[in-house]
This record gives sequence, C-alpha cells and structure tokens, in this order.
Amino acid sequence: MAIVTLITDFGTQDGYVGAMKGVILSIAPDATLVDLTHDIPPQDVAAAAFALAQSAPQFPPGTVHLVVVDPGVGSARREVAIDDGWQRFVGPDNGVFALAVTTPKAVHEITTLEWRRAEVSATFHGRDVFAPAAARLATGATISEAGAEVKLEGTLGRRPPTLSKDGRVATGQVVHVDRFGNLIADVHVAEEGAQGVVKIGRLSLPLQRTYADVAVGKPLAYVGSSGLVEIAVRDGSAARALKLKRGAKVVLELVAPARRARKRT
Amino acid sequence: MAIVTLITDFGTQDGYVGAMKGVILSIAPDATLVDLTHDIPPQDVAAAAFALAQSAPQFPPGTVHLVVVDPGVGSARREVAIDDGWQRFVGPDNGVFALAVTTPKAVHEITTLEWRRAEVSATFHGRDVFAPAAARLATGATISEAGAEVKLEGTLGRRPPTLSKDGRVATGQVVHVDRFGNLIADVHVAEEGAQGVVKIGRLSLPLQRTYADVAVGKPLAYVGSSGLVEIAVRDGSAARALKLKRGAKVVLELVAPARRARKRT
Amino acid sequence: MAIVTLITDFGTQDGYVGAMKGVILSIAPDATLVDLTHDIPPQDVAAAAFALAQSAPQFPPGTVHLVVVDPGVGSARREVAIDDGWQRFVGPDNGVFALAVTTPKAVHEITTLEWRRAEVSATFHGRDVFAPAAARLATGATISEAGAEVKLEGTLGRRPPTLSKDGRVATGQVVHVDRFGNLIADVHVAEEGAQGVVKIGRLSLPLQRTYADVAVGKPLAYVGSSGLVEIAVRDGSAARALKLKRGAKVVLELVAPARRARKRT
Repeated sequence: MAIVTLITDFGTQDGYVGAMKGVILSIAPDATLVDLTHDIPPQDVAAAAFALAQSAPQFPPGTVHLVVVDPGVGSARREVAIDDGWQRFVGPDNGVFALAVTTPKAVHEITTLEWRRAEVSATFHGRDVFAPAAARLATGATISEAGAEVKLEGTLGRRPPTLSKDGRVATGQVVHVDRFGNLIADVHVAEEGAQGVVKIGRLSLPLQRTYADVAVGKPLAYVGSSGLVEIAVRDGSAARALKLKRGAKVVLELVAPARRARKRT
Repeated sequence: MAIVTLITDFGTQDGYVGAMKGVILSIAPDATLVDLTHDIPPQDVAAAAFALAQSAPQFPPGTVHLVVVDPGVGSARREVAIDDGWQRFVGPDNGVFALAVTTPKAVHEITTLEWRRAEVSATFHGRDVFAPAAARLATGATISEAGAEVKLEGTLGRRPPTLSKDGRVATGQVVHVDRFGNLIADVHVAEEGAQGVVKIGRLSLPLQRTYADVAVGKPLAYVGSSGLVEIAVRDGSAARALKLKRGAKVVLELVAPARRARKRT
Repeated sequence: MAIVTLITDFGTQDGYVGAMKGVILSIAPDATLVDLTHDIPPQDVAAAAFALAQSAPQFPPGTVHLVVVDPGVGSARREVAIDDGWQRFVGPDNGVFALAVTTPKAVHEITTLEWRRAEVSATFHGRDVFAPAAARLATGATISEAGAEVKLEGTLGRRPPTLSKDGRVATGQVVHVDRFGNLIADVHVAEEGAQGVVKIGRLSLPLQRTYADVAVGKPLAYVGSSGLVEIAVRDGSAARALKLKRGAKVVLELVAPARRARKRT
C-alpha cells in the first residue's frame, strides 16, 4: 500500500483537490493519500519547494510525493517523475523540487499515454497528468515507464548564501515565513549548541535555544527544527513585529572561529 | 474498503468534522475517508453543488459522497440517500446534488432508526444522521434500507443558460469563483478547439487555449478543465481585476455557425 | 490498524503537519491518519481542548488522539501520554486535555528513548516527541512503556460555571466561538425539551429548538449538539451581530424549578 502525499496551491474551497484524489484512487485504490498542504499561496513555487523539503525526509522509502504548483501549466515546462533512489516525486519541472531533491537518480518526462488521462486539458494537469502518473507509481510502476529520461532544469532562481573565508560569517536571506510569522533563513547550522549573533533588519540577536528563553513579545534567533536559522517573536509574529518578509537579509556571526556556519543552497 | 468523501461548510477550526469522521469510523472502521473540502462558504449550497460536481466524476464506482451544507437543518427539507447507478450520495435534499446527480436511479429518505444516531440533535444532522447513513452504505448496505423511496426535490433556483436559434450564441452566468479568482460560467463547450468571443463586463475576449497564451496580468477566456467557459487573469485574479462575482452575465459567441455552444443547466 | 487523529495549530501552509505525518507513517505504516483540525488559532490551548472534546467521544475505542498546541515547547511543561481506559491521548500537559479527559486511568511522561526521535529539537516536539509516541501507541505499545507515571497538571485556568441553590439559574461564559459565529457556553442542559431564558449581553432569548425557529437574521438560544447552551443568529454570525467573544457572561434561567441546569467545568 503505497503512500501518495499531496502538495498544491489549489486551496480547499473548490473541487480541484477532490478531482485529483478521485483520479488517484480510481487507478490505485489501495494508495494511502496524505494531504501535506493545499494552502501554498497561489503560484508560489518557492513556498511549495520549502514545504516539500520540510516534509519529505520524514516519510518512508517508496513514498510518492505529488506536487502541483504550476503557474506555467500548458506552456513549455516539462512534466516529470523523479526517483532519488529513496522516494519518488511527480510534478512540473519548475523549481518545486529544487530543495527536496538534491541528487536525483533518474528523471523521466511523463509522456507515456497510459500515464496520462485520455483527454488532457490545457489548464488542469494536476488531474490529467500528475495524478495519474503518481497513481501509476503507487501501483508499482517504475519511473522509466513514464517516458524519456531528461535532466531536471527547474530552479528557484535564488542567490545562494555566502560564507566568509574563516567560516565565521554566513550571509543569506529569509526563504520562508511560516504560519506563526517565524522568519526562516537559508543559513544552516550543523553543530549543536552553536553560539553567535544573528543580524536581521536593525536587530542583533544572540542565538537562543527556544522561545521560552526570552520574555513574551520579545524577538529571538535560534536554530530551528530543520537546522536553519530562524527569527521569531515569542507568542507573536516576527514578520509583523519586524515588518520583514521573504528575501530579507540575514547574517549569522558565530563567536568562535572553530564553530562554522554552513550554507545551504 | 469503501471510499467515503466529505464536503462540508464546517471549516476546520472546530471539532465538527472530527465528530463526523469519528462516527463514520466507529460504524465502518475500514472506510477510506477522503476530505474533498470543508471550506465551502457557510450555507453556500451552490458552491457545494459545484465542488461535488467537479470531484465526484473522478471517483471509482461505489464511492459514497457525503455532503453537509445544510442551512435548513432541523426544518422540513428531507435527509436523503441517492444511488445514481454508479455512486452513492448522502445529504440534505436542498440542491447540493443538483449538478452532480442528473439522473438519480433511486432516492430514499433516511428514516430507518439504525441509520441514525440513537439521539438526533436539532442542529447537527451531519453527525447524527448523514455520517451514520454514509457509514452504513460504506459497510455494504443498500440504499433501499434507508427508508421510503422519495423524489429528489432540491434545486439551485438558477435560471438556465439560453442558446440562440442558430446555436451560435450562448448566454449564461458566472456560477463559481475559484480560489485563483477564475470566473467559471455555466456555458459548456463540447468541441475541442472551438473559436469564438466571450463577453463579460465590458470585455470581449477571444477564446484562448491556456493562461500562457496571454501576457502576465492580462485577462483571457478559455474552455476550462470541466468543459465550461472560464475567464481568468494570468498570474492574477479575474474576480478582483474585473470586479465581478457569481451571477455576472457571460455571453459566448462562436465564430462559425457550425460550431455550437451547448448549455448546461 | 489503529486510528491516529491530529489536532494542531500549525495551519496547513507549511510543512510541519506533513513532517509529523511522515514520522508517524514511518513508525506505524498501517496507522489510519485522521485530520481533526490544524486551524486552531496559534497557541490557543482552550480552542484545542474544545475541539478535542467535541471530536474524541465519537471515535472508536483504542483511537490515539495527538494534540500539538504547545506554546511552552522547550520549557518545563511535561510531554505526556494518557489512557482513559477507552482511548489514548498524546501531547503537552498544558490544559489541552482538560475537557476531553475527565478521569485519566494512567498518565505517563514520554521519556523512553525509543519513543522519541534520535535528535530532539528545542522547538518542534510535534515531530520529535509527540508524533513518534503516538506512532508507538498505534503499533500496540502500552502507555506504561512511555516513561514514569505522573499526574496530569494542565488546566485551562477558567472559572467554572455556578448554579443557584434551587438549580434554576446557571451562570457561565462563552467558551468557544465556532466558524459560523455561534457562541457556545459552558452551561450544560441534560434534559430534552428544557424551557427557559438565556441572558447574554443585553439580550434575553427563550430557548428554541433549532435555527429555523426564528426568522433569518434573528438571534436565538438553544441547546446545541453537545448539550451546551449556544447563541446563534440564523444564517448569520452571533459573534459579529452581538459583538461578543470568548469569556462573555451567559446566564440560563430555567422556567420550572423541576428543570435543572447542570454545570460543566
């Protein structure tokens, strides 16, 4: 019984997600459908990429991750199925896989007729291409049956974070604002208990361990649950309090040269 | 293992949906629950009817569709179970089935005591009547066990679209605004590659194939994934840009008399 | 195949819920995941407690309810697993269980290493502690394996409703505002067909049976589907119309001394 997870920007007030689920269960009745999120902001490929990267690593091997955030539907971007040697991914090749799939083992374009609906609309490839392809994988098909092998091309077009020569100063940006208004940067810290200062906007914040280390309403910086530097306001919203959003500059200065910041692209 | 889909206007911040799921799984532990949407605007029967019509056709035969958008709960509208010869439907007879069920094979009122909770509240028939009835169907019961046979009475009270004598001009209305702000009309186009002009508000828009056929921020008309005429703004919201909503007049003029618009009621 | 329900305040636009689901399915691949709600307002322990109390009683015995609304993550509040002799509960001991679990049979702190992720972050115990613990229970583990037995300490810090000596007058407060704007009070009415008057704000409203008993747009009071006094506006929002919210005073005066209001704490 294969797991098929779903990430879309369809919201849940329309019947779009339901249509995709019906297509999957018609082809793969034993699939276990798992909603990851349908509340990606419309056409926000970067937010989908981030949500996928947060979720996918926790799922068992063989899981099929279906991602439909597809502003280019009907245009030239490829429809792909990816195997990274551990899990499978299906969606448009527009950058949604840029964070979760770092070393694809095989990427195939989805062109095989049996992998697509008999009639493919120009505007709803989630239902007509991606859902049936994910369902095929859930029934045991291998990725090479989808179509010709291709290269993954999509990127998020984002400048990677930089690291000073002594490895002490990392400069990146806010890459995600979560529901709580926490600002998450692309600065990765590998070591536990790292000490340093995070500069964002006009603030310089020492690295703390968790929210409870500051008073209610106060801002703090810490290494979040994904190993990335985050800026939060205890029991509040850092995005609102600091008036900052995705793209804001974040600098981490570690206190000892021995402790190194690492960049994550 | 029967599939039970759920459409409600309960939202997801309260425990109402959870209570219904618990009732279903207590009676039919092997049922596969599939959330279609719980974000139908409160008491918006027409939106529920549209979401159901978009989703249901994609599901396998035997699926049970449970719809609880029920402004008349506790009043005279009937509680019904429907078999259309292919799938089953459970909910209030208030128009929610008007688009998805065009030719019901059998409609039965839900009165059998074993199909309802021991104690039925006056305000939450989703939990006390519809969820147990859907669960009975999921365990293999047939629709005739629900109660006496009745006629389906609910309608959406909507004027059907009209068609000119030569079949060239269809006049309908926006029947749904989706999450992206796309305006979806009740004008159905059967032929692929139909050519024509769509008039809405002050705009006259040629039928295009997909979003990518116009520049970002520009409006376009096209035949959507359900075969209905839609008006969108590329990477934007047509509802906001055009300041239009459900009920707005939509006229489709096909270019050649040979190409016919068809109305859908 | 154990049922694991999920209540969080994570919303659904990020990957947090997905990460938890992946952890559960990696440990307990046969678990049936049931989303109750992820739209609890951020850090609103009382709203989570209410949603859990509405949903849990409908689920079959053995169900595992996972609740992660945890403003104190990383601080001193305990992580607990609870057995009430019928179902199991996992989450922070901060009051989220105060309404659903009235007589816990056993409460154990979650300290066993195998019940937690190898690396436990300071900010995401949903993924690192609560999800693996719920998954262990779903695979058949017993609560005593989680760690040492403790006492449940969390409360909602709410003044309980009071009852007049003759049992005729109950004074409580609005404890929940639902999606429809219905105001739900902590005044429980056990008898069917109870007659009386509900005082809230400047209004005195006779107890009605259901919404349809008043005209559209008019306020009404009734005994809701949980046996609690509710105040609604037919086809509207009582919260908006009456400008009232959680904490507002609600008085129920029953008409005959024989009919008694009961308080629920």
